[in-house]
Amino acid sequence: MTTPFDDAERAAVYRAIHERRDMRHFVRDPVDAAVLQRLLDAAHHAPSVGYMQPWRIVRITDPALRDALHAGVERERQRTADALGQRRDEFMKLKVEGMRECGELLVVALMDGRERHVFGRRTLPEMDLASVACAIQNMWLAARAEGLGMGWVSLFDIDEVRTLLRMPPGAKPVAILCLGHVAAFYPEPMLETERWATRLPLQECVFDNAWPLKPRE
Amino acid sequence: MTTPFDDAERAAVYRAIHERRDMRHFVRDPVDAAVLQRLLDAAHHAPSVGYMQPWRIVRITDPALRDALHAGVERERQRTADALGQRRDEFMKLKVEGMRECGELLVVALMDGRERHVFGRRTLPEMDLASVACAIQNMWLAARAEGLGMGWVSLFDIDEVRTLLRMPPGAKPVAILCLGHVAAFYPEPMLETERWATRLPLQECVFDNAWPLKPRE
Repeated sequence: MTTPFDDAERAAVYRAIHERRDMRHFVRDPVDAAVLQRLLDAAHHAPSVGYMQPWRIVRITDPALRDALHAGVERERQRTADALGQRRDEFMKLKVEGMRECGELLVVALMDGRERHVFGRRTLPEMDLASVACAIQNMWLAARAEGLGMGWVSLFDIDEVRTLLRMPPGAKPVAILCLGHVAAFYPEPMLETERWATRLPLQECVFDNAWPLKPRE
Repeated sequence: MTTPFDDAERAAVYRAIHERRDMRHFVRDPVDAAVLQRLLDAAHHAPSVGYMQPWRIVRITDPALRDALHAGVERERQRTADALGQRRDEFMKLKVEGMRECGELLVVALMDGRERHVFGRRTLPEMDLASVACAIQNMWLAARAEGLGMGWVSLFDIDEVRTLLRMPPGAKPVAILCLGHVAAFYPEPMLETERWATRLPLQECVFDNAWPLKPRE
């Protein structure tokens, strides 16, 4: 386990990190079953708080269920647009999901029965979500290495998705993942290309020993 | 951007995913400044909801501050043990952090002013934490590729850490990261070796189209 990564291996890990994109444009070719299995296994090898492994992944193969999930996302997209106020029109022009085109649609949820897990969660119960996000990031990077794109959609009504997938009340859906082949990966984050936001300079996110004093405005 | 990963590159990404560990044992050698910079940059290239980039990372170089953070974690470790009931003694035997030995100590927080960001967060405001967790997972995998170990400590009092680091009320610490050289990476998750928990079979975490019916007990 302690054999160092060689230069090419190290570069490959950084390549996946830097070339991973939140994709919303897919082509309809199916995802190979063995590749999907490797991606799910990559998710399952994420770290988890107190080793609780809180991730549950529902693979959507029923076209009617895919349609119902998509309709819910479309309703939430409208509600989000209304909540955005002056950026409404700008938001409505963005493609925010690829749910009808992607080869595989997955819903990721927090398992039920999480209250039993106290280790690392007494003051921060939301660490279960952090673990699930690490699992999704593993899958995102592995997908990039497999030449597949992935997008995380969080525009949905929680109770609606819970009901559609017959989840118990203690479980909670946190992601609709679009996964599939793409014509090309975006050269930069799509929201940067579309001028929704720009990447912050790294130094604005890293501080020494304390939060910086606010610059006077 | 669309050049496929070759077999060796793909294998390197999976190697990082499978050999990454939540480390609590470190050796004191310093972390190279250029390597630290690459890891911070890897974190900064994570996906974020609505491209909000909510991660803020405080590098702890002040030994008194490191001591104060460690003392707080030790107090929370005791409180967690008390909350665990019958697993108290088992928990107290575990090494849950390497804060005094690790070469670099980082506190990761959610930025303040997050309420302005509505895209992807209207129904799931906690997506900011999910983005921060993706950033930490990027760093974890990059660290593994660099031959460095990392551990995520979530045993702390939020207000106490906020005060120590002079964070504004709207910011929230979510991770104390121990980063540094290690004598060896654990061959399997330490909590598995210590028999705290075992890895679930993958098929218990992956479902088709709906949550499974509970088996009768």
